Amino acid sequence: MELKRPYLLFIGAARDDLAAKTAYGVAYWRPEWSIGQVRLDGCTTTLGLPDMSVEEGAAKGAKTMVIGVANRGGAIADSWHAPMRKAVELGMDLASGLHNSLTEVPGLGDLAKGLGRQLVDVRIPDRDFAVGSGVKRTGKRLLTVGTDVSCGKMFTALAIEREMQRRGLKADFRATGQTGILIAGSGVSVDAVIADFISGATEWLAPDNTPDHWDLVEGQGSLFHPSYAGVTLGLVHGAQPDALVVCHEPTRPHKRGIPHQPLPDLKDCMELHVQAAKLTNPAARCVGFSINTSRMPAADADAYLKATASRLGLPCVDSVKTGVAPIVDHMGTLGLL
Amino acid sequence: MELKRPYLLFIGAARDDLAAKTAYGVAYWRPEWSIGQVRLDGCTTTLGLPDMSVEEGAAKGAKTMVIGVANRGGAIADSWHAPMRKAVELGMDLASGLHNSLTEVPGLGDLAKGLGRQLVDVRIPDRDFAVGSGVKRTGKRLLTVGTDVSCGKMFTALAIEREMQRRGLKADFRATGQTGILIAGSGVSVDAVIADFISGATEWLAPDNTPDHWDLVEGQGSLFHPSYAGVTLGLVHGAQPDALVVCHEPTRPHKRGIPHQPLPDLKDCMELHVQAAKLTNPAARCVGFSINTSRMPAADADAYLKATASRLGLPCVDSVKTGVAPIVDHMGTLGLL
Repeated sequence: MELKRPYLLFIGAARDDLAAKTAYGVAYWRPEWSIGQVRLDGCTTTLGLPDMSVEEGAAKGAKTMVIGVANRGGAIADSWHAPMRKAVELGMDLASGLHNSLTEVPGLGDLAKGLGRQLVDVRIPDRDFAVGSGVKRTGKRLLTVGTDVSCGKMFTALAIEREMQRRGLKADFRATGQTGILIAGSGVSVDAVIADFISGATEWLAPDNTPDHWDLVEGQGSLFHPSYAGVTLGLVHGAQPDALVVCHEPTRPHKRGIPHQPLPDLKDCMELHVQAAKLTNPAARCVGFSINTSRMPAADADAYLKATASRLGLPCVDSVKTGVAPIVDHMGTLGLL
Repeated sequence: MELKRPYLLFIGAARDDLAAKTAYGVAYWRPEWSIGQVRLDGCTTTLGLPDMSVEEGAAKGAKTMVIGVANRGGAIADSWHAPMRKAVELGMDLASGLHNSLTEVPGLGDLAKGLGRQLVDVRIPDRDFAVGSGVKRTGKRLLTVGTDVSCGKMFTALAIEREMQRRGLKADFRATGQTGILIAGSGVSVDAVIADFISGATEWLAPDNTPDHWDLVEGQGSLFHPSYAGVTLGLVHGAQPDALVVCHEPTRPHKRGIPHQPLPDLKDCMELHVQAAKLTNPAARCVGFSINTSRMPAADADAYLKATASRLGLPCVDSVKTGVAPIVDHMGTLGLL
């Protein structure tokens, strides 16, 4: 899949940032692709983009309307049907990361087919993959890993892409989840492939490249999360990372959805992921830590970053507050860049 | 899925044991369910069961015809179509572990539907699963793991089931692959589920049970195999094994399909799998090694088993030559039984 740009971001009647977090991610990381937002009656949040009707978005040249709002259970609300049909009629593709497929909207599939538009459910892989070969590929790769799900792996990979590109390095974010795919315009939702092909799908996603090129591969889950560690391990083996960045949210009382298990220690987390990565890349090493300190008082956050960097001997950043430059600097010091 | 018994085993025009290895497995482990074999012209191997036509099998009461032969690429040969249709017409279900689905045989799906027969592709899960919870379940579980794919994990789990049942213990083999499912009559092909649900599917497969009951869970792949380790890890976490048995084939020059990687050391293999298992069962421990010595001279095999048992301090058996009793004995000594 390769999504057509620019995007019109549809956030329906979202009541808060969380409901529209997919659209927020796209607007934040790809402002140059995001020409406007479509809000329905009752919407009480904004992406900070110009408000547009579907017609206005089409007139401004939008090529894909992104369904960037989450509903209870991933469902598609009835009130979205009319604007979705309108977008297709006016020449746009639709892209969605929801659980429910766009093809479940009555008549939408036929309408799109008749008009030659794509309905892209980014959760659902649109091709078959080979099993992973474990053969080392050319080019360099960085993978974000973490102590839990949803602790900043996508954000950190995107921040490092931006920092590397700012320095004139060749760098591409490689998306492995729904929001990441909408931000990258392509990718593979690795947790949705058939289990046998996790590492193979990741090998396909980050193929051979020039020796000075970096893929920044979005991590998923954690080797310490009992629900998703299988996905994580296949992703680690397929990515063959030269560099790993460990992501962490320190205030969580337990792993998400697993109330009986606290988060692992950062050092243990680093060591287990690096050990796993060495199976397909013996040169794999950790190059830093990315901590989401948004729920800590500023002074605590600062102290935490300093203490962790000192304890573990590696750069320790908050992707939002400090930026990721110290990690990229350190990669330069190590001779990786 | 729950396959109806007894079975009629179809081996087509198989030229050797390997082509009919699925049927061999069923005939070896479930002689009481295997009433006969169907062979076509050109078949040069035998399961040692009575030869029957499909009509004779039906008359003897076969409830499922098992397609127990592998073809190049998992395809269904044209010459199999007529006997398959005949079996359905005469009242049998069909079950197959091939890559190609039974529904691809022209007209077979409609015929089965009209007559109320099941066409069971055991590779394809027939239900949805929840994500794994990591919550400890009641009852006991043993999981076979290994240094590579295809090194005796199914055989060893079945041998331990048989040995435990012989001793009057409550024990059930839990199948995670095609041949295992045909032998158990039910199960989940864990490498064919959506990646997010590997551990959840395994939790479903080996549910809460009485405290003295053992599930013998068939392992898949290896944490050291770069193609399939994700499946293995989800399976380890979902199985929550109290006991692990490490399987190994010592003469292999490299991991199957991975010519650039030798097999891991047995001790490293044991430690990594036990460490992974402790995430969902802190009491997990290795209780023995199961070595496939079929390609070693008898004296070498004997010396290898003795040296390995001595080096690692645990029972080291060949499931075929020595039987698995020493492993079950050791579990008793440890107070696990």
